[in-house]
Amino acid sequence: MANVFEFEASIPLSDKKHDVLTVGELLIDMMTTEYDDSDTCDTYQKLFGGSPSNIALNVKKLGITPLVASAVGDDGLGRFLVDQLQQAGIATDLIQCVDDSTSMVVVTKSVATPIPIFYRGADYQLAYTSGLEEAIINSKIVHFSCWPISRVPSRDTIESVIDTVRKHGGLIGFDPNYHPMIWQKGENGIDYVKSIFGKVDIVKPSEDDAERLLGKAEPERYLDYFLELGAKLVILTLGKDGALVSNGKETLAFNSLATQVVDTTGAGDAFWSGFYAALVKGYLLKEALSLGFAVSAYKLKYTGAIVDLPHLEFIKEKYGL
Amino acid sequence: MANVFEFEASIPLSDKKHDVLTVGELLIDMMTTEYDDSDTCDTYQKLFGGSPSNIALNVKKLGITPLVASAVGDDGLGRFLVDQLQQAGIATDLIQCVDDSTSMVVVTKSVATPIPIFYRGADYQLAYTSGLEEAIINSKIVHFSCWPISRVPSRDTIESVIDTVRKHGGLIGFDPNYHPMIWQKGENGIDYVKSIFGKVDIVKPSEDDAERLLGKAEPERYLDYFLELGAKLVILTLGKDGALVSNGKETLAFNSLATQVVDTTGAGDAFWSGFYAALVKGYLLKEALSLGFAVSAYKLKYTGAIVDLPHLEFIKEKYGL
Repeated sequence: MANVFEFEASIPLSDKKHDVLTVGELLIDMMTTEYDDSDTCDTYQKLFGGSPSNIALNVKKLGITPLVASAVGDDGLGRFLVDQLQQAGIATDLIQCVDDSTSMVVVTKSVATPIPIFYRGADYQLAYTSGLEEAIINSKIVHFSCWPISRVPSRDTIESVIDTVRKHGGLIGFDPNYHPMIWQKGENGIDYVKSIFGKVDIVKPSEDDAERLLGKAEPERYLDYFLELGAKLVILTLGKDGALVSNGKETLAFNSLATQVVDTTGAGDAFWSGFYAALVKGYLLKEALSLGFAVSAYKLKYTGAIVDLPHLEFIKEKYGL
Repeated sequence: MANVFEFEASIPLSDKKHDVLTVGELLIDMMTTEYDDSDTCDTYQKLFGGSPSNIALNVKKLGITPLVASAVGDDGLGRFLVDQLQQAGIATDLIQCVDDSTSMVVVTKSVATPIPIFYRGADYQLAYTSGLEEAIINSKIVHFSCWPISRVPSRDTIESVIDTVRKHGGLIGFDPNYHPMIWQKGENGIDYVKSIFGKVDIVKPSEDDAERLLGKAEPERYLDYFLELGAKLVILTLGKDGALVSNGKETLAFNSLATQVVDTTGAGDAFWSGFYAALVKGYLLKEALSLGFAVSAYKLKYTGAIVDLPHLEFIKEKYGL
């Protein structure tokens, strides 16, 4: 990898079989069927969930090849998730079936910020296998979030994943979506998350993530701090105010491309998806960032984390990029 | 307590403030809204659950005074459960709010035997508190199942509960509903469950429970074995074939009183409820057992673990007891 990712160049990716390998949480979002701010809605819908798995579904629709490495339980919920991936035409060879319940997040649809209830089970039992190693060696981009590093043994798995990418070449994207509620009890997760920034290439903290990790500060200060921690490219998203992106040499501001905001769920995953798809398709870094924001804007018009995305080129044209 | 519980006598209970104290799982049953044998139903309903908590709701309706000691999370599901108890007029002072997600069981309505998916969280964080100790001292009957003893720290809590009952007098009912899926990994739960029989008074294994604990055998052999383990009264339920009950001196056979079986969920809890209510109301042991089976038969006519039970005397009359 280059020392600086130039905005006016494409990021060189090795010619490998798989475009994006996501490693981590594949889980059920159990969501109330109605908006509810007083715990009165009794009915729920089970939805495909887990941020990296959403990215895999998205990039497939955008026109590149994903692979998913995750762990589910030997139960009806795990079978549902695997089935959803297969229906989308995504290989499930790297889905491990482990001795724990399929992980779940119970979410209340809310106009205020909903407070999720986390049920960690199978997801963090993800093991480092020879199959996973082979997939890493053959993937252009490897992506993970804070979920697998929040607990052992999946944390050890991610450490091995990073080592293997570093040895065999490849780009690492990391979503520093730190939240104390997913972290194992009795550990300061913040220090561990910070230690990861120097081992990956691209990070995309939201302003909330940044505040949880670094305390309250100005966006520019966040950029500096994440760069100091070792990230090569920092994409700091600011909601309706767009994003600031720094490669350590210069900082670009991107305006939000959203024209209509119906539901923000999955907007960050949509960004990653468009951005990765564009990188794989060889767009300049600056263009790839714009395409990521365009895919995010497209997703914002629809309800749910997973929407029926068209090919990347369709969105590129639609947003005049 | 007497050495033998005579069928033709009532069990003498001290004059205490609370009739039945249930200690253990208070949780959400997340159940598919449709019958489903192929994981295709996507909608679920959240229901009040946890066997001891169901017993508490039931006995309140039957006309005696319950108290519930449980642990829930500081989340919407925990608030829902506490609210349900309060609506039923049951004191919730002994519900502990702990730093873990409210426990949940995901269940598929099925004509075959449904395979539940367990999410243990808050329930096994139940601590032994001075409030709990006071409640134990002031309760005629204390009831628990295999859930709290399946994991630490709630196992330690139950051991203290048993010690306190033994010191201050009181009857202990234990539901040996052993299942390897709820047990903590890497431990042979069977030996531990067996060790509990000698520390309690009344146990009600189903034939399935007995087989899981002792292997396949004739019902009479199960009775002997549970008595040898130290139980004073063994109520072995045999589904449609009724039950065998032994006090170590004699064994009585009870026919099922069911006239119509719509849903078996919660039938065992309904038995415990009717049985405890009758013991508290001073019926002879033999009558109390019959009343337990009558309440169970009444419940079997309706769907769900919790049904709108009438007063015990109404059921007594209805079943000609």
